[in-house]
Amino acid sequence: MSYKDKLRKINPYVPGEQSKEKDIVKINANENPYPPSPKATAAMRDFDTEKLRFYPNANATILKEALAKYYGVGVENVFVGNGSDDVLALAFQSFFCSDKPIAYPDITYSFYPVWCDLFNVPYVTYPLDENFRINVEDYKAENGGVVLPNPNAPTSLGEGEEFVRKLVEYNADSVVIIDEAYVDFGGYSSVALTKEYPNLLVTGTFSKSRSLAGLRIGFAIGSAELIGVLEAVKNSYNSYTVDSLSIAMGIAAVEDDGYFKETIGKVIATRTRVTNELRALGFEVLDSQTNFILATHDGYSMKELFEYLKTKKVFIRYFSLPRIEKYVRITIGTDDEMDRFLSEVKGFLEDR
Amino acid sequence: MSYKDKLRKINPYVPGEQSKEKDIVKINANENPYPPSPKATAAMRDFDTEKLRFYPNANATILKEALAKYYGVGVENVFVGNGSDDVLALAFQSFFCSDKPIAYPDITYSFYPVWCDLFNVPYVTYPLDENFRINVEDYKAENGGVVLPNPNAPTSLGEGEEFVRKLVEYNADSVVIIDEAYVDFGGYSSVALTKEYPNLLVTGTFSKSRSLAGLRIGFAIGSAELIGVLEAVKNSYNSYTVDSLSIAMGIAAVEDDGYFKETIGKVIATRTRVTNELRALGFEVLDSQTNFILATHDGYSMKELFEYLKTKKVFIRYFSLPRIEKYVRITIGTDDEMDRFLSEVKGFLEDR
Repeated sequence: MSYKDKLRKINPYVPGEQSKEKDIVKINANENPYPPSPKATAAMRDFDTEKLRFYPNANATILKEALAKYYGVGVENVFVGNGSDDVLALAFQSFFCSDKPIAYPDITYSFYPVWCDLFNVPYVTYPLDENFRINVEDYKAENGGVVLPNPNAPTSLGEGEEFVRKLVEYNADSVVIIDEAYVDFGGYSSVALTKEYPNLLVTGTFSKSRSLAGLRIGFAIGSAELIGVLEAVKNSYNSYTVDSLSIAMGIAAVEDDGYFKETIGKVIATRTRVTNELRALGFEVLDSQTNFILATHDGYSMKELFEYLKTKKVFIRYFSLPRIEKYVRITIGTDDEMDRFLSEVKGFLEDR
Repeated sequence: MSYKDKLRKINPYVPGEQSKEKDIVKINANENPYPPSPKATAAMRDFDTEKLRFYPNANATILKEALAKYYGVGVENVFVGNGSDDVLALAFQSFFCSDKPIAYPDITYSFYPVWCDLFNVPYVTYPLDENFRINVEDYKAENGGVVLPNPNAPTSLGEGEEFVRKLVEYNADSVVIIDEAYVDFGGYSSVALTKEYPNLLVTGTFSKSRSLAGLRIGFAIGSAELIGVLEAVKNSYNSYTVDSLSIAMGIAAVEDDGYFKETIGKVIATRTRVTNELRALGFEVLDSQTNFILATHDGYSMKELFEYLKTKKVFIRYFSLPRIEKYVRITIGTDDEMDRFLSEVKGFLEDR
């Protein structure tokens, strides 16, 4: 036997590289085109780095308090982690501990099967319908748990309160995780329902609507019981996941609600304009509740559009996957970025 | 069946709370008494927060490059994570994948059994000898892997090159992890040996010698093969563990070698003085190669000393554990802090 036999066999998940080129339009990672709140920047500039010699508060209590106040829940209902991927990875380990398969849609966040493989969680997928909607009746089957984004990605489509109530009630014997990474751009939030359903966990992130992808802050809201299990697993993994600077800057971002609403309003206005302009060019564009749109055009290869735009330094996202290989995903950038995108799209259509 | 049956059963590991009191001497968490490098502070003040809207570079390549240069290894030999607890937790998942028990000392870092429980890794412990040294011959047995801190904690005792060579050669069929959290305070570093032994992984942290416990940066050095598996597991867990600000500040800290050596020199000088003064008071103090000391005194209860000092707002560490319940662990603070500690210790001895 060699030490090699004791190594984890795993298909390396390779994260996308960030381009370092200048003068590019980077609308491929669902990042926010606007900078974070100036109050978060001020919190950084004012931060006393001498404090960094100490470990952070393991519970990031003051950040939890800011989120609890914002969402109208108790501090015991809030969990924070190193980005929502960290929160979701811990939630998979915390709540999906049975032999029954967990359930999620066939077209959804690509990390779910990766975590299932990593933690040996069995899973089934239920196909979206022909309009890319989730059929809640599929989830009436017995499941080891349920996880899905609402709004879903990369479809951009969101579901409402009735859908979530049904989903949680059909799965009263399992934990249901609603991943609200994109909810602030116009989706329905299930946070209030966590007070009614002890088996519902809602996750969120500072990476999209709060323009802080570089800082790594994610959170979850749920019953004190679920949050307690998450805390126990997290504290058995790494007690200090959120660093002291992120805690300080995260609080400032949450408290600056005016800036938050203003930038979200701008993203939504741009999304509406881009959607209309693409439709006028003959594209089919789904009704997005997120900071990205999913679009296609009959008679044109979206893979070719993706490759063409890359040569013009406009980076969008193409998934070479069943059912969505006819679509491209476009993050909503600034108005200037989207004007350049639209202009290059026109060039592509004229070239063909 | 209830959703409760699908929750992870785990004994909650409860991290120590940080005291918020003023005018305390906090020498209980092996934190550095000196602030981080002024260059790390400058890197923070100069940081362009607009960049935070982007995800960090998933590989934290520029931080890896700084560490590779510092340690004289290739970038492909360096891994970085969210504190060395994150690095170790990922290493347990990456390298301890057999039915055979992994091995570590009976008195050592308290997180090892926690990770074994979390990841279902079987383990055996080998007792330290009567002088709290590790007997390398114990590790000749067939193991699923080996992990130990060098210098060890909370003993403060370090082993040299011959010990590590034997340990790695005895366990050529397993991965051996040497956890060098405290090595910069006078221990022997095995980093150079990673070039000879493909099954040796060395881990390190910015939390002790670099005064950045609040920022959460840990790293590992080993063969490109081991680092590749660590990367694959990490990217399947959370691709973006080290945030953009930590990357920038971490690089500045690594590059400021003058400040690094100066603060370490001060800690070591204070350690020598405190060791001598305690010995003059009748204490037995182990020969520390770390930023803390383990001490005891015949005829006095160390638990009582710990409790007494707490009433004086001097916080040291007491472990209510077999074999070390007669000792206290004291982090080396500033000279002023240690003077106050020594003065209170004298008061304790006189009171009894």
